[in-house]
Amino acid sequence: MTLSDTEYQRQPRIPNPHRICGVAPVRALFLRRAQDVIRLFYLPERRREAGPLCAHLARTRRVYREVDPVELARIAGTEHHGGIVAIASLRFSEELPGHALPTNLADAPVLTVLDGIGNPHNLGAIARTAAFFGCKGLVLSDDPRQCDLSDAAFRTSEGGLEHLRVLRARHLPNLLLGMRAKYLTVAAVAAGGVAPEALPRDRPFALVLGNEENGLPGPTLEACEARVTLPGSGLVESLNVAAAAAVLLHALVAARRR
Amino acid sequence: MTLSDTEYQRQPRIPNPHRICGVAPVRALFLRRAQDVIRLFYLPERRREAGPLCAHLARTRRVYREVDPVELARIAGTEHHGGIVAIASLRFSEELPGHALPTNLADAPVLTVLDGIGNPHNLGAIARTAAFFGCKGLVLSDDPRQCDLSDAAFRTSEGGLEHLRVLRARHLPNLLLGMRAKYLTVAAVAAGGVAPEALPRDRPFALVLGNEENGLPGPTLEACEARVTLPGSGLVESLNVAAAAAVLLHALVAARRR
Repeated sequence: MTLSDTEYQRQPRIPNPHRICGVAPVRALFLRRAQDVIRLFYLPERRREAGPLCAHLARTRRVYREVDPVELARIAGTEHHGGIVAIASLRFSEELPGHALPTNLADAPVLTVLDGIGNPHNLGAIARTAAFFGCKGLVLSDDPRQCDLSDAAFRTSEGGLEHLRVLRARHLPNLLLGMRAKYLTVAAVAAGGVAPEALPRDRPFALVLGNEENGLPGPTLEACEARVTLPGSGLVESLNVAAAAAVLLHALVAARRR
Repeated sequence: MTLSDTEYQRQPRIPNPHRICGVAPVRALFLRRAQDVIRLFYLPERRREAGPLCAHLARTRRVYREVDPVELARIAGTEHHGGIVAIASLRFSEELPGHALPTNLADAPVLTVLDGIGNPHNLGAIARTAAFFGCKGLVLSDDPRQCDLSDAAFRTSEGGLEHLRVLRARHLPNLLLGMRAKYLTVAAVAAGGVAPEALPRDRPFALVLGNEENGLPGPTLEACEARVTLPGSGLVESLNVAAAAAVLLHALVAARRR
């Protein structure tokens, strides 16, 4: 007997574990949450990089295996596996219980907030840049378009996601209003904002980035204290959100350190 | 009779035309080289954007057609077509005849040079950012890993490639040496360079970006006058090349305008 579509949807979903692909993402995974690693697979040409990780797994009686490229692509579910794949228990973004953030996040110069970013490669790219510039946290909004942690996001982040606390807001506008005492909440907008150098620098920044096509929703814009815009030539309409994030994170981190 | 692999390879390659996908890339194509458009296809929901373009094609007796999503994906060769696809004659990068660049390129504050960037999405992303910040040209090296203009690059550039002259160097180190009178040639390196603010600002910059995995080759590094590095937290090894390009282009354009 096979299940109808409706019956199938009623079955409890058993989530697959994450497949963390690539040398840098796998190394960061072992560094930050080695206890989460279930298995490790790699190609012969990654033996050198895999060596110390296999030794760790052997001590804790977990499985590792050298495999051929066909097998690794099957395990990874993608050709973009970089020669090494760790199977790891699912990591979920942490749901924020109320309207307050963990206090230690305010030690970093910028906190990045994503509101409606649907492409996991953009999430991963922004996480890589945020970790590169020393950020500690990433907040995801409750917008239904907003993507969450996924294999693709881990791969693109090149380990950056392992260095960030990833939090999910229940209601982003309320969270932003509640953050004002500790952060300058800044909406990134395509037009009508000030240059990053013109923002006040009395508090760490919360940089709020919106959907790839449509930018930030009205309630989020209204909840932010300031708006920032990167002036362009007008020849192309906008920067890619991950490129805009890189320019703004660099500028805001530099502003706080000045 | 079918051809053997060897015989097939001996046949002259008849290049397919480009498939330019997405509203912004198609608009920029019509704006900059409408004469190159062969056909236009779009979904019913893109009728508004397609209207003026169809009117232009009708006047010049070229074909346009509203199609369904299955047909458009087949024409585009990808699901990422944004609802509109123009078939356009192939555009090639212009091979530089000697070691001199077109003089008018030096009007822009930065000229971007790619040496070994193999991913067309990175080329497209960098072209989008370069056009956004008002650059006029993009130089591709003779490195065999360097990708050239392609459907994927046009799509990712969101029209940016239509606003740039794309030139191909015969021998990049010699070109860089010959450019020194007019440009400060700057190699982007992961470590050991100065901050962008510390570069001399007496000439426009030629910003040289290297391969995603291995950076710039030795002869290119030696041919550059200066090296620039974005300092990071050390938590992730490097920025993605398109993110680094965005931060550096913004910083260098701002430096020239200061």
